Amino acid sequence: MHRGGKIEIRPTVEINDTEGLSLAYTPGVARVCEAIAAEPDLAYDYTWKSNTVLIVTDGTAVLGLGDIGPLGALPVMEGKALLFKNFGGVDAIPMCLDCKDTEDIIDTVLRIAPGFGGINLEDISAPRCFEIESRLQAQLKMPIFHDDQHGTAIVVLAALLNAAKVTGRNLSDLRVVVSGAGAAGSAVTVMLREAGIGEIAVADSKGLIHVGRDHLPPAKKYLADRTNPSGFSGPIANALAGADVFIGVSAGQVPEAAIASMAPDCIVFALANPTPEVHPDVSSKYAAVIATGRSDFPNQINNVLAFPGLFRGALDVRATCVTANMKLAAAYAIANVVGKDLSPQHVIPSPFDRRVARNVSAAVAHAAIDEGVARLVP
Amino acid sequence: MHRGGKIEIRPTVEINDTEGLSLAYTPGVARVCEAIAAEPDLAYDYTWKSNTVLIVTDGTAVLGLGDIGPLGALPVMEGKALLFKNFGGVDAIPMCLDCKDTEDIIDTVLRIAPGFGGINLEDISAPRCFEIESRLQAQLKMPIFHDDQHGTAIVVLAALLNAAKVTGRNLSDLRVVVSGAGAAGSAVTVMLREAGIGEIAVADSKGLIHVGRDHLPPAKKYLADRTNPSGFSGPIANALAGADVFIGVSAGQVPEAAIASMAPDCIVFALANPTPEVHPDVSSKYAAVIATGRSDFPNQINNVLAFPGLFRGALDVRATCVTANMKLAAAYAIANVVGKDLSPQHVIPSPFDRRVARNVSAAVAHAAIDEGVARLVP
Repeated sequence: MHRGGKIEIRPTVEINDTEGLSLAYTPGVARVCEAIAAEPDLAYDYTWKSNTVLIVTDGTAVLGLGDIGPLGALPVMEGKALLFKNFGGVDAIPMCLDCKDTEDIIDTVLRIAPGFGGINLEDISAPRCFEIESRLQAQLKMPIFHDDQHGTAIVVLAALLNAAKVTGRNLSDLRVVVSGAGAAGSAVTVMLREAGIGEIAVADSKGLIHVGRDHLPPAKKYLADRTNPSGFSGPIANALAGADVFIGVSAGQVPEAAIASMAPDCIVFALANPTPEVHPDVSSKYAAVIATGRSDFPNQINNVLAFPGLFRGALDVRATCVTANMKLAAAYAIANVVGKDLSPQHVIPSPFDRRVARNVSAAVAHAAIDEGVARLVP
Repeated sequence: MHRGGKIEIRPTVEINDTEGLSLAYTPGVARVCEAIAAEPDLAYDYTWKSNTVLIVTDGTAVLGLGDIGPLGALPVMEGKALLFKNFGGVDAIPMCLDCKDTEDIIDTVLRIAPGFGGINLEDISAPRCFEIESRLQAQLKMPIFHDDQHGTAIVVLAALLNAAKVTGRNLSDLRVVVSGAGAAGSAVTVMLREAGIGEIAVADSKGLIHVGRDHLPPAKKYLADRTNPSGFSGPIANALAGADVFIGVSAGQVPEAAIASMAPDCIVFALANPTPEVHPDVSSKYAAVIATGRSDFPNQINNVLAFPGLFRGALDVRATCVTANMKLAAAYAIANVVGKDLSPQHVIPSPFDRRVARNVSAAVAHAAIDEGVARLVP
């Protein structure tokens, strides 16, 4: 399946004779070039820019494999490009960078960006990923989206919206514990707060993050200042007792006793791949809703539910950025597809449900227009 | 024809269900990533690298339009990508850089190169193009090819081989005058010398280049040291008297009297676009063979005769570079396609003749193997 790669370039214009050649290429193409040089936004009309995304990685945090370098990352980026086209109709180009320094990555992306309509950052390790994304978004008037952060956060929120509903809880009443404070854990936490959840405690490999903990790097200090109002400290189990929701986005295991101490009918999203933080056979003894990152259990949390539709919608209205409301709109759109099929084993739709990408795209485009970040209002 | 762009990304693998998804993407793709991380050359087998070329430009010398910037250049690069696939089956990605400094361009290309099998430099102005190409080739073990230089030179040599034959001349006896000492003029001159022509004089906008001329920049000093053994100086007309061949690759016009002073049955390639250095209606009074860069006259010198087949052949054997012999082999292959159809109006084949790309590709691959720069010998 992977031999020779999984994507190719295909012409959308047929050239069969000298006349076609002189229209598609020289001398005919000169008119289009001059028009764009005079009015750069015309590139959205007369090139593939309006439908094209760069998938940028440095290969430092690939799947669960870690820093395997740019070439090792390429099969994942090709797979991602395949999914972008299959599910969102978006042309995506794998771009595996042979540099790891934050400034080098930013400089490089700024230089290669003009011919593309958006940037999907992928598998770039924390904490560099935070600065790279925010600096690129500040300088480029196109959607910049680190999928390991926001794609995961969108799908987690979508699943949680339905898990709360099926267990009879209000979203704002949930007490949530997040295991993992890297790219995914941070973004999930920020997004759940934006969705109205006030009581979130985050743990990293050293235990719970709270304002009193020493030597916190900036990204974790940010979390400490905004989460854990009850001031839980020590091992993650200290916060899990009585909690409604566990969200695992790390490789760390959680003991059965800690899950057993959670609230009745609790919600357990153990998303580490391939080994969940707590196995579904264990958590099913205590939890009402279980989700994993795996396809061989119910409720797979899969980013492919979000990124193709999100970029489709952003590109359709030529959004200049990806806002919090666009991401929230994507999460609600995914959750709403489940509709009357909602059950503890089905809080999230299948990516093969054609309504997913279509509804996400429409919701994201609508949110972009509402917020005034759309250049094109169809 | 240009609306929405001229190329797209297409999956080569079909994904219809969860199982397909888990093979093409996570978790199945991890095995391929690990294999490549351990043995980077496997990327040629298990990704699109083996068939993929970056078309890199900074938009500084686009067609006859000059420095119109990266976005203005994009329609040309898309057209080129279309031709790469149509004529050579090569997947080519437009890469329009938002930087002009030589070091910035080199750094950027080095960082983005790993996921691709070769680099086609395009429309980068002289003299930066010379250093960019040679430094990239020194650092990357893949074909680096500045088409404005070598593509033009290959097709000019191909046409000249047949023009010499049809006018009953030996290649080595030709006395040649080249108008233009930029990217194309320099490369044409170097290549004609490699093909065995000893008597070449080159002129730029200031007149003929000779060892006695002051203030020559390095690229022109290089030409002065290796050309013009007769020491012609002053206006280009001084060298044209009695010359066998005129090759124009500049925008400068040549007066009729200068063409009239050339040898009987002379050869005039006036390749400036859209306005040839001397119009075919004028040169036809004196020349036996005329070529232009335009499709509306006989003998169009068109780079599409060379670059698709050249990269096809280089990629097929995983050549680590493009050597002089590979380029010479391409020129002879193009010339030989004409065969018994040779006439003064037909010294060069049509790019739509399917033998062109096929024969160029085979000749280039063969030359790469002969020279020991092929990593793969089929």
